[in-house]
Amino acid sequence: MVVQYDDMLNKLKSILLKKGFSDKDAYDSARIFTTNSADGVYSHGYIRFLTVISYIDKGYIDCTKKAIKLNGFNAFEQWDGQLGIGILNATSCMKRATELAEKYGISIISLKNTNHWMRGATYAFEACDSGFISICWSNSYPTMSPWGGNSVKIGNNPLVIGIPRENKKHIVLDMAMSQFSYGKIQEYSQNNSELPMYGGYDKNKNLTKDPNILLETKDLLPMGYWKGSGLSILLDLTASLLSVGNAVCDIARNEVAETTISQVFIAINPKCFSSENEREDIIAKIINDVKSSATTNKNSVLYPGERALKTRELSMKNGILVDERIWNKICSL
Amino acid sequence: MVVQYDDMLNKLKSILLKKGFSDKDAYDSARIFTTNSADGVYSHGYIRFLTVISYIDKGYIDCTKKAIKLNGFNAFEQWDGQLGIGILNATSCMKRATELAEKYGISIISLKNTNHWMRGATYAFEACDSGFISICWSNSYPTMSPWGGNSVKIGNNPLVIGIPRENKKHIVLDMAMSQFSYGKIQEYSQNNSELPMYGGYDKNKNLTKDPNILLETKDLLPMGYWKGSGLSILLDLTASLLSVGNAVCDIARNEVAETTISQVFIAINPKCFSSENEREDIIAKIINDVKSSATTNKNSVLYPGERALKTRELSMKNGILVDERIWNKICSL
Repeated sequence: MVVQYDDMLNKLKSILLKKGFSDKDAYDSARIFTTNSADGVYSHGYIRFLTVISYIDKGYIDCTKKAIKLNGFNAFEQWDGQLGIGILNATSCMKRATELAEKYGISIISLKNTNHWMRGATYAFEACDSGFISICWSNSYPTMSPWGGNSVKIGNNPLVIGIPRENKKHIVLDMAMSQFSYGKIQEYSQNNSELPMYGGYDKNKNLTKDPNILLETKDLLPMGYWKGSGLSILLDLTASLLSVGNAVCDIARNEVAETTISQVFIAINPKCFSSENEREDIIAKIINDVKSSATTNKNSVLYPGERALKTRELSMKNGILVDERIWNKICSL
Repeated sequence: MVVQYDDMLNKLKSILLKKGFSDKDAYDSARIFTTNSADGVYSHGYIRFLTVISYIDKGYIDCTKKAIKLNGFNAFEQWDGQLGIGILNATSCMKRATELAEKYGISIISLKNTNHWMRGATYAFEACDSGFISICWSNSYPTMSPWGGNSVKIGNNPLVIGIPRENKKHIVLDMAMSQFSYGKIQEYSQNNSELPMYGGYDKNKNLTKDPNILLETKDLLPMGYWKGSGLSILLDLTASLLSVGNAVCDIARNEVAETTISQVFIAINPKCFSSENEREDIIAKIINDVKSSATTNKNSVLYPGERALKTRELSMKNGILVDERIWNKICSL
């Protein structure tokens, strides 16, 4: 079935209001869940909404708390998320990063004690809308074994890079360190199909493409083997060091939920030394060259973020595709 | 055969002096080539020295030129490498980045018109020695097809992240976007062995582990398939936009050599909101947890940069392992 954008937004907002959110916070949060769904990132849109509500009910997410600034040193600020909802904490930190980058050219905000930001691309798109390049990342619950290791220790720590472009055709990469996300593996399992390439390990530490085995072992493969493993470790180290917050191994100790995580938000002001026309020309040159690599159909080569923009267009026109059972559960809250 | 560190440094320095380098520049450059070799990164150490000399002879590298500042806006500066030698241009940009990060908390230097930096880890180690976290990347000649594409268009654009640690046990990730570097593929070819996993495509666009086929097609596989492809594109976009310099597709037009490339250097001051003891505790906690994933020998799980530090120790004790024929060629210059 499909649900229209405004209907989803109003429904989610009304539920958040019942949970104690202020009108503005309920609207802002519902808007992010709805936009993620409209962009086709269902796993971090309406599908994840039920989990977030259960986290609010259990007290892991405190909807009366907001991220606050702890310390500042010119272009670098340290913030505390106070266990508020992750999407609003991340929104305010990225907004603050763009303010500081306007003043200094580049800025960095570290955030501790926050909750899952759902889809990291959300904050890169927001920075893009204000004209800023952004780089942000989060640590997470452990999902992978480090290269050479035999037990799950490192996080899928998503890394996000966003580049603003005219007409909001922003280029946004949102990339977890595992080759496949849990959401994708669940999709393959539901469709009774194999993954197209290795996605992780079975119990005997052999690589497998079987999604059902992976849902059992929960031992995912880092993208690029040793490369994703190394990058995951460095993203955790930097997030923990700069925020003086929890590392993946601390988050792992909380066995019931992924909470009290650490994040980093960097904003860069691209307007310092070039005109918008110069930048548009550089972007068009690169994207056209990359797309010229397709032999038949230029659309077989997509730039990061392009599929989301196409899906958003369709969702705004035809409504957002939803799983009826999950949507009904949400409507019954 | 082995060559002692000081003997290699003095030999390389004497050759650079003959090519017209100043005494200081010859020493600084020779030191970087020698340290890369001592760290076991031979492909970007003495082995690459002959190529660099030929680039100097052909005028692609101008040893009389240095990187100069074009523009500055507080913590963001734009530099021009003026086609000077890449290793000294990168050294001065990273040094400037640490000075600005000391003042602002974070800083960024963009650099255009430079040459190959050899091993990106060099500049992260230098920032680490001064106590700074660093993130830097470069664009490059195209080496891979973008995901969904059929011709080589995107660069292996190395990404480097460094974290300073006491006793110089720095953690440094230096990661090209291809699953295997050319140097590694050549090694497998010389040893007549297959790659342990897919390294790129044959002429029919089928994935292959055969190093000899890859040395022919030069169509390498992005690490993590679509993920390395996407990250490569974003690193090129940001480097070109921030430096207002060449993109991978511009570098490709110069068919005879990889030159006039663009780079980015970010430095972050970790001392702003934590003590050295706090940071050492966080790092030790994370590294110990990651290493505890090994079942038998803790050394089977290495942190990024650990192998280089171990190899450096051995090289300083026993001398640097070199290929006799290549070393003799260098000595005959």
